[in-house]
Amino acid sequence: MPTALVCPACDRTDDDRWRCTCGHPLEFASHPRPDGPAPDFSAFDSRRGVAAFDDFLPVDPRVSLGEAFTPLVDAPALDATLKLEYVSPTGSFKDRGAATVIARALECGADRVIEDSSGNAGTAVATYAAHAGLDADIYVPDSVTAAKRRAIEATGATVVTVSGSREDVSEACRDAVASGEGWYASHAWNPAFFAGTATFGLELAAQRDWSVPDALVVPLGHGTLLLGAYRGFRALVEAGWTDSMPRLLAVQAAGYAPIAGETGTETNDLADGIQVRDPVQREAVTDAIAATDGDAITVSTEGVREATDRLGRLGFGVEPTAAAAVAGLRRYRDRGVLDGDDVVVPLTGRAK
Amino acid sequence: MPTALVCPACDRTDDDRWRCTCGHPLEFASHPRPDGPAPDFSAFDSRRGVAAFDDFLPVDPRVSLGEAFTPLVDAPALDATLKLEYVSPTGSFKDRGAATVIARALECGADRVIEDSSGNAGTAVATYAAHAGLDADIYVPDSVTAAKRRAIEATGATVVTVSGSREDVSEACRDAVASGEGWYASHAWNPAFFAGTATFGLELAAQRDWSVPDALVVPLGHGTLLLGAYRGFRALVEAGWTDSMPRLLAVQAAGYAPIAGETGTETNDLADGIQVRDPVQREAVTDAIAATDGDAITVSTEGVREATDRLGRLGFGVEPTAAAAVAGLRRYRDRGVLDGDDVVVPLTGRAK
Repeated sequence: MPTALVCPACDRTDDDRWRCTCGHPLEFASHPRPDGPAPDFSAFDSRRGVAAFDDFLPVDPRVSLGEAFTPLVDAPALDATLKLEYVSPTGSFKDRGAATVIARALECGADRVIEDSSGNAGTAVATYAAHAGLDADIYVPDSVTAAKRRAIEATGATVVTVSGSREDVSEACRDAVASGEGWYASHAWNPAFFAGTATFGLELAAQRDWSVPDALVVPLGHGTLLLGAYRGFRALVEAGWTDSMPRLLAVQAAGYAPIAGETGTETNDLADGIQVRDPVQREAVTDAIAATDGDAITVSTEGVREATDRLGRLGFGVEPTAAAAVAGLRRYRDRGVLDGDDVVVPLTGRAK
Repeated sequence: MPTALVCPACDRTDDDRWRCTCGHPLEFASHPRPDGPAPDFSAFDSRRGVAAFDDFLPVDPRVSLGEAFTPLVDAPALDATLKLEYVSPTGSFKDRGAATVIARALECGADRVIEDSSGNAGTAVATYAAHAGLDADIYVPDSVTAAKRRAIEATGATVVTVSGSREDVSEACRDAVASGEGWYASHAWNPAFFAGTATFGLELAAQRDWSVPDALVVPLGHGTLLLGAYRGFRALVEAGWTDSMPRLLAVQAAGYAPIAGETGTETNDLADGIQVRDPVQREAVTDAIAATDGDAITVSTEGVREATDRLGRLGFGVEPTAAAAVAGLRRYRDRGVLDGDDVVVPLTGRAK
């Protein structure tokens, strides 16, 4: 029996919906927490992927390509520690969420999943669906590049192209879900996806022997990683395994600043993974940032280009959206927000 | 003091040469082995990368991007277990060797390394050199694709293009080494590179709680992985941690069959990572195959294409050279070489 869902806005519960009848994103009604003190890092078996953290997971994590346990590497040149989320089966942190959302799809009896994303989430959901033997339809804008389309099609998924804006793509996808064409494995809506990205926080703390960093600097689009990290760290506090939270310092793309609120004439044309003007989880993201004394800023195209080049020359081959966090780190330092703090920056996706 | 090198052909020893004065590839003069019984898998700290296996390493593995601890995933559809070597910092198993060969370069006082490869080895060596703060010159054929060139240049390495055959590229590279332009971090020649790829065997056995598979099916070009696996498994037998060796079943590209010896008119134009007609370590490779009751065969372009497609639809996004091993697995089964055996197939590099 899958864990029930609850609406934080109107308290309705449901077994399986993609959003509440009131329109709000849903959360799990209950969250498992382990008993006892925090174990040594060696207690987490890297062979199990996200399932190594199953004491915290509201889904049965039975689908794995060996995601998680990504490297944590000191970068003295940046005065930060980098978590190499791009060292993942499909090359991004989205694999954590794809593993749990596809596990949830199986729990709910789905045989076809639907997702809208022409980027890392679409590739991850298509790949994990393929591995689990589920059919997948991935909705993408008709401007999708040939390379991205090929990567998704290689999994056997059906690529459905939609003309118009990114929002038109989401609408077409949701229409298909409403027509009963499949189960919505959304990285922006589905709480099972966030349950997977929460392992980022659990794992990071475990890798640091339960020393919580002062701050995380993370790219922010729909908030898949920011909220996952927040929920993971909060779970550790609830379990009594840690006693503090990192400040969540978000980085948005110039021209796409729904949380940062920065205005200007520039539109960041490089960090395409965070070109989100209307994040589904806006309220939860804002709350998480406020609760951790965090902040949100934007970065320019030029800042992202510089950070991508710099990371490459330090041996980190990432896509611009990942480098945006390092560009943001620089801006946060320039603004005096960080001063000698112990900072971790996830590198969310590999160079394409 | 770096571990001395010895020539297996003429017994000369040396502190630091890229090959013996007699022309033969060198090996380490001594190989560390741990005392005591085999520990649990949890004794190997995944946070350390290849350094987790330092009890077996003749180099001080002080350079890491968090390579190793790659996923081991059952693939019932293929009746085999796959080791996802493409889940690595630069996307291939070559990161294991790059970590140790660059560590060796530092031990030997190099400040510039030289390598010839337009593929995964070139990218890995350039990336680890960048991370270690060493300059790198990577020699490639002038037919190199723009994407490969960009990946290498992104690390800050100098790409040196050479017209002519692949052998002309190697010759130009060795001329540069002879002129004192840098230290040869060769994936084909340098024993420190093979010390790193040996962790593939160590890790695989550890992940299986010291149950050695009946057979490995591996792509074979210069033999970087085949010999690494052989040396890793042999080290475990020498340490008394295991008591058997897997059969080494090599897979070459049609038209490039120096070990398999199969002749025909076809030239495999997809599996470009194993288009090697004159493997540097031919003698060692032949010995390893013979010592394990192994074999070598070739696979066709069509076989590689089919295997790449099939792997994609199972959720494994790999390059054709990696899929060649799965094409080879099929041929080995068709020939009755494998019958209910417990087989592991490494997937050596990700889809580009």
